[in-house]
Amino acid sequence: MPMDYVIIVAGGKGLRMGGDIPKQFLEVDGMPILMRTINRFREYSRQLRIILVLPENQQSVWHSLCRKHSFDEDDLLIADGGQTRFHSVRNGLDIIRDDEEGIVGVHDGVRPFVSTQVIRSCYEEAGKHKAVVPTIPVAETLWHTDGFTIDRNKHVLGQTPQTFSIALLKEAYRQPYEESFTDDASVVRSMGHHIMLIKGNPENIKITTPYDLKIAEALV
Amino acid sequence: MPMDYVIIVAGGKGLRMGGDIPKQFLEVDGMPILMRTINRFREYSRQLRIILVLPENQQSVWHSLCRKHSFDEDDLLIADGGQTRFHSVRNGLDIIRDDEEGIVGVHDGVRPFVSTQVIRSCYEEAGKHKAVVPTIPVAETLWHTDGFTIDRNKHVLGQTPQTFSIALLKEAYRQPYEESFTDDASVVRSMGHHIMLIKGNPENIKITTPYDLKIAEALV
Repeated sequence: MPMDYVIIVAGGKGLRMGGDIPKQFLEVDGMPILMRTINRFREYSRQLRIILVLPENQQSVWHSLCRKHSFDEDDLLIADGGQTRFHSVRNGLDIIRDDEEGIVGVHDGVRPFVSTQVIRSCYEEAGKHKAVVPTIPVAETLWHTDGFTIDRNKHVLGQTPQTFSIALLKEAYRQPYEESFTDDASVVRSMGHHIMLIKGNPENIKITTPYDLKIAEALV
Repeated sequence: MPMDYVIIVAGGKGLRMGGDIPKQFLEVDGMPILMRTINRFREYSRQLRIILVLPENQQSVWHSLCRKHSFDEDDLLIADGGQTRFHSVRNGLDIIRDDEEGIVGVHDGVRPFVSTQVIRSCYEEAGKHKAVVPTIPVAETLWHTDGFTIDRNKHVLGQTPQTFSIALLKEAYRQPYEESFTDDASVVRSMGHHIMLIKGNPENIKITTPYDLKIAEALV
């Protein structure tokens, strides 16, 4: 039976939060955001292999946080963060053998509210379509910055976990880095591969600002 | 000195909320959303004339809510809601004389978290540019439903109040209704008029789902 993985990318320095604690280590209702995120994937499946990508200089802080919160880290594979998110994901992928046949998801460390149901759909659909992105509708009118509206019903907002066949994502990440790579699916898409968009959950916000942190406290 | 107006559109039936109370009448921390919204504009300026557009069959409920909450409604001009948002705004505009020279804003009744600062900017900029929309950045990757990304840095999400010179908005609303009219600025834009996009505040959410209501309770 093929093995499935998730690469949880936690490379943020949290500068927009105004403090010097990386945002993924900030607590929401007493527990660091990153631990909440990891737990969501454990709730989905204890068989899933979890690769945690952390900047080298944050790893010792992480280990002491785990001790402080009695957080089990025995099942976590750790990879070093890179210069950009692209390089971080590539470092995570390097842990997976080239001949593995399962699914790999890539998830933002600061999205602790993804639902188990959405995780399940992402992995199941990736088995059929090889490249899957969970999305939510655009709730506001969508404006081009040149001052005209575009049809929001033809657009959606992409979240994570984005899930892929391991072979496909590894192939995509052998491409040289380009600035247009905004997420993992855009790396795969640049090879011409079709991306399957499925329904995500609106609570699955990316916590990057103090405003988001306030919302997060409400969602717990 | 020209008189400024705001048309607050509260025509929602609230069906997505699952109950039979119109969403603008739902309470957040003990006060109906619509009252919170109105108060934001009073905080901006007591000189602003407030036109409230309400479906006819909700007006008596509104008056009794005002009595229940000791909410001052003496300064509110009431217009009847129409078949669509377009028709509701047009009914509100009919209250304003054709020769008035001020600014009119149009605001969603279910956006009680617009900041006073954003309201002020919208009215000030409309004095110079005649058509203004407050916007926030697109925080997630923007996907076309056909499965390709588009540059989110070239797009923003439009909120309200959208503000206009009275003459311009009245002229725009003399056009026949089209389905592509998603907001007031798109009605003005369809005449070829330039729309000025300015910075809004992220808390200024439109409360339309139970999820939004949960967020709203956190923002109060």
